[in-house]
Amino acid sequence: MYNVGIDLGGTNIATGIITETGEMICSRSSFTQSGQSYETILHQIAGEVSALLRDAGLDPSAISSVGIGIPGVVNAKAGTVIQCTNLRWYKKPVQSDLESLIHLPVRIENDANLAALAEYMAGAARGVSSCILLTLGTGIGGAIIENGHILTGKSGQAGEFGHMTLVADGIPCACGRFGCMEQYCSATALIRMARQILGQRPDSTLVTLTRGDLTALTAKMIIDAARDGDSAARTTFDRFTHYLAIVLDSLTNLLDPEMILLGGGISSAGSFLLDAVLREFPRFEHGSPRPVPRIALASLRNHAGIIGAGLLSAQGCSFA
Amino acid sequence: MYNVGIDLGGTNIATGIITETGEMICSRSSFTQSGQSYETILHQIAGEVSALLRDAGLDPSAISSVGIGIPGVVNAKAGTVIQCTNLRWYKKPVQSDLESLIHLPVRIENDANLAALAEYMAGAARGVSSCILLTLGTGIGGAIIENGHILTGKSGQAGEFGHMTLVADGIPCACGRFGCMEQYCSATALIRMARQILGQRPDSTLVTLTRGDLTALTAKMIIDAARDGDSAARTTFDRFTHYLAIVLDSLTNLLDPEMILLGGGISSAGSFLLDAVLREFPRFEHGSPRPVPRIALASLRNHAGIIGAGLLSAQGCSFA
Repeated sequence: MYNVGIDLGGTNIATGIITETGEMICSRSSFTQSGQSYETILHQIAGEVSALLRDAGLDPSAISSVGIGIPGVVNAKAGTVIQCTNLRWYKKPVQSDLESLIHLPVRIENDANLAALAEYMAGAARGVSSCILLTLGTGIGGAIIENGHILTGKSGQAGEFGHMTLVADGIPCACGRFGCMEQYCSATALIRMARQILGQRPDSTLVTLTRGDLTALTAKMIIDAARDGDSAARTTFDRFTHYLAIVLDSLTNLLDPEMILLGGGISSAGSFLLDAVLREFPRFEHGSPRPVPRIALASLRNHAGIIGAGLLSAQGCSFA
Repeated sequence: MYNVGIDLGGTNIATGIITETGEMICSRSSFTQSGQSYETILHQIAGEVSALLRDAGLDPSAISSVGIGIPGVVNAKAGTVIQCTNLRWYKKPVQSDLESLIHLPVRIENDANLAALAEYMAGAARGVSSCILLTLGTGIGGAIIENGHILTGKSGQAGEFGHMTLVADGIPCACGRFGCMEQYCSATALIRMARQILGQRPDSTLVTLTRGDLTALTAKMIIDAARDGDSAARTTFDRFTHYLAIVLDSLTNLLDPEMILLGGGISSAGSFLLDAVLREFPRFEHGSPRPVPRIALASLRNHAGIIGAGLLSAQGCSFA
């Protein structure tokens, strides 16, 4: 038997056929028009599931269940989306509404939790008992796995790493707080730091590359230039990884996990990122050596969400 | 049947007879001489257990087991103390050594975990599924309860709240880091902040009270003066609770607990502390109301450690 995994984004619907061990044997993806109604998107999802089965040459009877990852707050037990700002969904019974369209059992979960589940069941955290996944992209998300359970918290909102405070009374954040980690460790933050530094560094290759238009800067440009030895880019990247190492150290003090995984767009910097963070991670405390978790890169990349959704009903996976 | 709970401090041994529901029916306490050997302290503990049973008029056959809370790092499964800096214990098989002295089953755990267990089983967090206990004293400790389990982490060091970073690159901490929460939210931090503020405020009642000798300041003096309306003390206390609220907010974003309990010496400020923290706790995020955990005072105070140790073997308690 197989499962269908669905990763619902703000602008596209990615689906895949997932085996019980987390292998993806077929996938597809389609864009969603912005501003579409709840009903239209559900019908589009149902159509994608049919097309996926056709692509894979599978009958619906070969599918045990369908899992969906939602980029928002979910009551997984009730099968409802509490809030999904991107899609403007509030209090929607997605599970039952979709079941009546596709005639297969449906389960829903938060998408970051599913990415962590996928890494835990079929990716870089396989065999690990406690793990934190941090996704470093435009914003920052993540999830916590403890003893094989994903911590969801009382309201399904655990793992909101982006808005833990890194600098009390620091840089204002869109959430209303000051000094959130997202203002120091996201791709957005990396770009902001680079712009500040490049103001005084007209010699940087990044200024040449963007023809002086720093609004054209991307995180990838900065990381590539740092790797190539550009001094201003390296200063920026070192500041970024300094902050990131502080966050990983704080999370270690709080949760003492066996492993911390870095995912999201920034993690495509690979070992260049990992080595820089490891250099900054404190290995001593009160003068004595201290336990350091394994810090590694998430391995399933863009597929983590679909695979995690496909594994929602798999044996051995559970949410606290 | 009863259990014996032992709270082993740096300078005293507190013991109690604990019922299966966490009631303490008899207790005693004795000082330890500093610098004593491991063997001497174990013999003193065994003597205290005998004396406790005599005080309570109980035969050893009425006791199911003996639990000990250790102010250090413990491998609870193996029954060994990995590191207890206060007592200079390193890699000590406390469980088996003590069992051979008192001829009763012994279990050991970290003392902050046991205080949280006591609050969860018999104190302010009874009936709550996920809870964080923060003990605010000279330093800061604590523990995390999730779905009825205490999170111990990979190396038994989860819940080291004192050394999560609150201000990246902030005030240097004895641990070797900068900007640890302990430098902003402990009794020690409160006193340091008051000294800084009082330098410019010779009119404060705290200056009169200490006759200008600010080394004599205590956290209680500052809190009492703030409650009585002293402006400099109030400024200090407001700064302290501002930082504390930021920490509680970060922990909420990370773990989304049902309840956060404040314990330790600072928590004796009671509702004066609680109200100040609640005023500062952010209730909105991205402009929308957000879930707020119940924030309350730990209720078992100094007895939490003994009661938790006595409950170590009780039904329904477990460690992740």
